[in-house]
Amino acid sequence: MSLSSEELRSRQFWRAMLAELLGTLVFVSAVLGASVPGPGEAPGGPLYPAVAVGAVIVSLGHCFGVISGAQVNPAVTLTMLATRKLDVLRALAYVGAQCLGASLGAGALYLALPLKSTADYFVNKVPIELNAAQALGIEVLCTFQMVFTVFSVEEQRRRESTEPGNLAIGFAHIAGARFSGASMNPARSLGPAIITGFWENHWVYWIGPVTGAMLAGMSHEFIFARSASRQKLVA
Amino acid sequence: MSLSSEELRSRQFWRAMLAELLGTLVFVSAVLGASVPGPGEAPGGPLYPAVAVGAVIVSLGHCFGVISGAQVNPAVTLTMLATRKLDVLRALAYVGAQCLGASLGAGALYLALPLKSTADYFVNKVPIELNAAQALGIEVLCTFQMVFTVFSVEEQRRRESTEPGNLAIGFAHIAGARFSGASMNPARSLGPAIITGFWENHWVYWIGPVTGAMLAGMSHEFIFARSASRQKLVA
Amino acid sequence: MSLSSEELRSRQFWRAMLAELLGTLVFVSAVLGASVPGPGEAPGGPLYPAVAVGAVIVSLGHCFGVISGAQVNPAVTLTMLATRKLDVLRALAYVGAQCLGASLGAGALYLALPLKSTADYFVNKVPIELNAAQALGIEVLCTFQMVFTVFSVEEQRRRESTEPGNLAIGFAHIAGARFSGASMNPARSLGPAIITGFWENHWVYWIGPVTGAMLAGMSHEFIFARSASRQKLVA
Amino acid sequence: MSLSSEELRSRQFWRAMLAELLGTLVFVSAVLGASVPGPGEAPGGPLYPAVAVGAVIVSLGHCFGVISGAQVNPAVTLTMLATRKLDVLRALAYVGAQCLGASLGAGALYLALPLKSTADYFVNKVPIELNAAQALGIEVLCTFQMVFTVFSVEEQRRRESTEPGNLAIGFAHIAGARFSGASMNPARSLGPAIITGFWENHWVYWIGPVTGAMLAGMSHEFIFARSASRQKLVA
Repeated sequence: MSLSSEELRSRQFWRAMLAELLGTLVFVSAVLGASVPGPGEAPGGPLYPAVAVGAVIVSLGHCFGVISGAQVNPAVTLTMLATRKLDVLRALAYVGAQCLGASLGAGALYLALPLKSTADYFVNKVPIELNAAQALGIEVLCTFQMVFTVFSVEEQRRRESTEPGNLAIGFAHIAGARFSGASMNPARSLGPAIITGFWENHWVYWIGPVTGAMLAGMSHEFIFARSASRQKLVA
Repeated sequence: MSLSSEELRSRQFWRAMLAELLGTLVFVSAVLGASVPGPGEAPGGPLYPAVAVGAVIVSLGHCFGVISGAQVNPAVTLTMLATRKLDVLRALAYVGAQCLGASLGAGALYLALPLKSTADYFVNKVPIELNAAQALGIEVLCTFQMVFTVFSVEEQRRRESTEPGNLAIGFAHIAGARFSGASMNPARSLGPAIITGFWENHWVYWIGPVTGAMLAGMSHEFIFARSASRQKLVA
Repeated sequence: MSLSSEELRSRQFWRAMLAELLGTLVFVSAVLGASVPGPGEAPGGPLYPAVAVGAVIVSLGHCFGVISGAQVNPAVTLTMLATRKLDVLRALAYVGAQCLGASLGAGALYLALPLKSTADYFVNKVPIELNAAQALGIEVLCTFQMVFTVFSVEEQRRRESTEPGNLAIGFAHIAGARFSGASMNPARSLGPAIITGFWENHWVYWIGPVTGAMLAGMSHEFIFARSASRQKLVA
Repeated sequence: MSLSSEELRSRQFWRAMLAELLGTLVFVSAVLGASVPGPGEAPGGPLYPAVAVGAVIVSLGHCFGVISGAQVNPAVTLTMLATRKLDVLRALAYVGAQCLGASLGAGALYLALPLKSTADYFVNKVPIELNAAQALGIEVLCTFQMVFTVFSVEEQRRRESTEPGNLAIGFAHIAGARFSGASMNPARSLGPAIITGFWENHWVYWIGPVTGAMLAGMSHEFIFARSASRQKLVA
């Protein structure tokens, strides 16, 4: 029995949705799992979560890259929408799937790990010594660099470069995750916030990454991309 | 003198068996060696074992990838069997070789390292603060993500992608090894259990990884793989 | 409307300048951010900054490699000038952009992070137990190895090797960043010096990296490069 | 003026010798530099030296891979000799260059770093809690795995695989460097021994790596290599 074109398209759509949901679930549980110290261990510093984020992004790029782009990040998805690489319906559906996946991932870890140790490590908080504007600036800076790499790799792939793009995106996450509080991903902040009910300064982790990602996407498309031209700017 | 086809097939079979045995020996000794703190050192946290696991998987992929697939993991082998990528005889022989290799690797380290320090670090234990069901859930989650990457890379290779697949599998191990107790590999748990005689909750490290791997293999084959189709589901 | 050849060249020039400025900004903020311990954390040792430097270099290579070479380092740029791979005007403009980007990056972090903790970690200082000549020697040695890799990768690309060159340069940075004080990049030292006003022994971080880079570039071009020949030496 | 074939061959020979000397100098200084804690720091555990070894091996593979193979290791060179991939004269010259480079690298660091801190970290010692036979066993095991990867990558290159071989060798070093005392490289042990005059159990770091490397080279050539056949065994 053969599938109609419409049915096939629909199947691809749902497959991509499921990929984003599953990908964000794995991403968020990997990040949180690496942030929580094991039983009886001292907090491990920022290196382990950074390496885990990079590693899981590399492996997700291989798992879901050809299915949905493995964006697993509302900031990336919204920038794809703003640069007309994704239509509105699909973008909103992706963001929804990402938020749901992040909540499921955070919830799964909350069930699987001892209660006390988790609450402190799960949530993205503005550190006491910083104010919200400083945390916002760090989010913008880190996400800018990461999303710029995503767009550059996407362009590189069109030119059939042999440099491994998935690794570059993973390394950009390692480089960007340098501050304990840096999220670069609204879904990663939303999931734990829903599970633990801690919403203080939550807006920072939506406005910051989205602003940084938009700046990166726009500057890449309009200034640095090979196809960038004055026509595009005046269009 | 020329070899008959049968003899050649047999030689390849034994070579693959030896590759799985040697590979698991190296894998298990690398994991255990990285988990045991050096003389006079404090326990080093989860990062070093995670990086060592990823690194040894990358190098084993180059050593034995073309010979036996460098599975070195009964959970992977059984999932290959379930998805009809491996016949029953070969799968069981691989699992046997992996268990033997893991025991030899654990035994070699037990001889080479001072006695006291090893017993505590060798065995996969359910941490005191978790119950067996929680540890089981973590195993399922970690192994799911890792085996999904293995299957995705295998599919990518058929499409002749230039992204380095061995690295992706290594990074998936780093991302999955984030919990101190996460094994993702029954052989890695069996070897030390045989050597130290510690069998408490050992079943967790067979049921968990195999369940996670089966879920990953099935969902990849039936939902995400390019060749996935309704025919396959109803077949 | 079509662009004249001159206008196009000029646009490419300014684009490359902006790439160097942005790249150095991201590079310096990543290095400094990884060196400063998070609030309430103990200093993290040299591994995290080393990994962050390598990671950000890999991602910058993808972002700006085709635009300006992603040199982000006056020592590299001056060696490119000395080996006639770059003309004087362009080289000086790049160095200026790099120094400006480094200052902006250091300034951004200075605003975003709590004041006290930063001053101690930002600036490249000669450690108390070393004298300036020792620090100079370490800079020469580390930068030699790193810049030699940059030149080797550049030559490899001309031969269309499939080995990922960006990764090699990133790893060379990890290998070279092994001493707490090693800068290998005058711009990385200049930015924080301007922001904090600490100029003691600052010359070490210009003379050292530039000497090491020159030695590497010269020995690569005249001894090891495939095109190296006696003609070149006597030219 | 054109070069005679002989002169050219001679130039290539000296270039390869210089590559081995320089490569081992950089390798040894990177390993030692990463092992010595910075001023005022606590010893950093085994992860940083392991990562530095892997990173420097990757970058050396790019620098000198096409010139001399970037072996930088007498154990590898002697195994190349035993498997008839290198003639006697060249092998002995390489080993000499490697030992000289290692001594120069250790000497350079000894001059550049404060005296007291170095002696304890430079030399490969059998840990107090182990005996020489245990240390020997660990060397054999670690070097086996590392050299097996070197031979596998070399074979892969002949088949024009796109998997990045330099990275695999680097990762094999990370995986093998898991024990504080593991050297896997006689030159790396010889250099510091000459500089500090500490020769206790020095033989372990020659016999161990060479035995492990020989076992790896022989088993790869005679059992696992694609070209391995019964003819070779009976030849």
